[in-house]
Amino acid sequence: MRIDILTLFPNMFSGVFSESILKKAQEKQAVSLNVINFREFADNKHKTVDDYPYGGGAGMVLKPEPIFAAVEHITKNSSTQPRIILLCPQGERYTQKKAEELAKEEHLIFICGHYEGYDERIREHLVTDEISIGDYILTGGELGAMVIVDSVVRLLPGVLGNEDSPVQDSYSCGLLEHPHYTRPADFRGMKVPEVLLSGNHQLIAEWREKESLRRTYLRRPDLLAQYPLTEKQKKWLEEFEKNKR
Amino acid sequence: MRIDILTLFPNMFSGVFSESILKKAQEKQAVSLNVINFREFADNKHKTVDDYPYGGGAGMVLKPEPIFAAVEHITKNSSTQPRIILLCPQGERYTQKKAEELAKEEHLIFICGHYEGYDERIREHLVTDEISIGDYILTGGELGAMVIVDSVVRLLPGVLGNEDSPVQDSYSCGLLEHPHYTRPADFRGMKVPEVLLSGNHQLIAEWREKESLRRTYLRRPDLLAQYPLTEKQKKWLEEFEKNKR
Repeated sequence: MRIDILTLFPNMFSGVFSESILKKAQEKQAVSLNVINFREFADNKHKTVDDYPYGGGAGMVLKPEPIFAAVEHITKNSSTQPRIILLCPQGERYTQKKAEELAKEEHLIFICGHYEGYDERIREHLVTDEISIGDYILTGGELGAMVIVDSVVRLLPGVLGNEDSPVQDSYSCGLLEHPHYTRPADFRGMKVPEVLLSGNHQLIAEWREKESLRRTYLRRPDLLAQYPLTEKQKKWLEEFEKNKR
Repeated sequence: MRIDILTLFPNMFSGVFSESILKKAQEKQAVSLNVINFREFADNKHKTVDDYPYGGGAGMVLKPEPIFAAVEHITKNSSTQPRIILLCPQGERYTQKKAEELAKEEHLIFICGHYEGYDERIREHLVTDEISIGDYILTGGELGAMVIVDSVVRLLPGVLGNEDSPVQDSYSCGLLEHPHYTRPADFRGMKVPEVLLSGNHQLIAEWREKESLRRTYLRRPDLLAQYPLTEKQKKWLEEFEKNKR
């Protein structure tokens, strides 16, 4: 997969892109990550990339020309149709499902604004996807792009080795994870549940299933609405409900 | 505000913390950002911070001792009670309201795991908040911590200067932003709406209000449910509804 990122703050990406999974994925050539300062594509003397909004008002607006020119430069020798992703608060809410969808693409381009608006023509005539990573305000799109890149690249074939195999992921199974414990069995009087020390695999599996259900019930009941419950799980839910009263 | 971040990948933070608003906020002494490798607090010879899970299963689990020791080291000379935040998929969903709440604190500590589970005793006996930035799987808590730090620090007094004043923020007014346009008025045949060139401030204000409502109606109708609509806005909504059919 090829990923290009258009930003006015290319140095922001240096730490995240040179550590851990993203570093390994590049070494394994599963992904090529390119960070491009779109100021280089401004065709005016002062390399201006923003301007005052038509109609007045506070703040500046990113001009269309440099961003169109940067995308055209990236795609001019490309045979595939890239997904062109704009990070913005008005975009569709990012989910694991979207990560899985993007992981199938050959080429992603991210456009990151930075405490400024985008000229609407970028939205309407250039981008294929507008994404928001959550209902909170960030200084720019850069962190959103890093979040999406991380979540997508870890799904690419060969990227997660055995040593990195995640503990049973939340979301992927529809319920939240059960609690985990490791040594010591007694840490300052805080003890590991006895069943986990029992060696009885059936009891352990059942305890984990129940605690996973309990955590989902307590923290994310919305996830249960779409989860196909077994009879045993329905009984447990009744028990949680009774204990709550 | 003081912010401490516990991580096994301290270099991940170098780019984000040394650019843009976070750089300025530190220069203005509005915030002090400290990144700490909690491996330094492992008291065993090999500086091990994780171990196999009790009860078996894939993946490793972060041990309680190094993380308890790191937090105790940070807080031992502190007179204030810090918020201790665990980044995890099971946490409460992060929102702008939570950012505003955290921005009132004097001291935040973030605990970032990395493709591993946390020993449950960390959750139960150490942390004050468990937060998830969204329903997607990331390699670690580091990007979540950066997202929260960015969204909180930009709210601290004196951090956003006039030059950074955000275009009317989405969420803060309850509706999504209206479209923005800047020069040129005609870019490759794509034109700026005439009303914005009219100089008529009342018409411009009305156009923006209507387009802000339209965008919210089309993309995030859930936000409208809790928004106090004026009579004029109700009529516009009826118009959008009619045009849709």
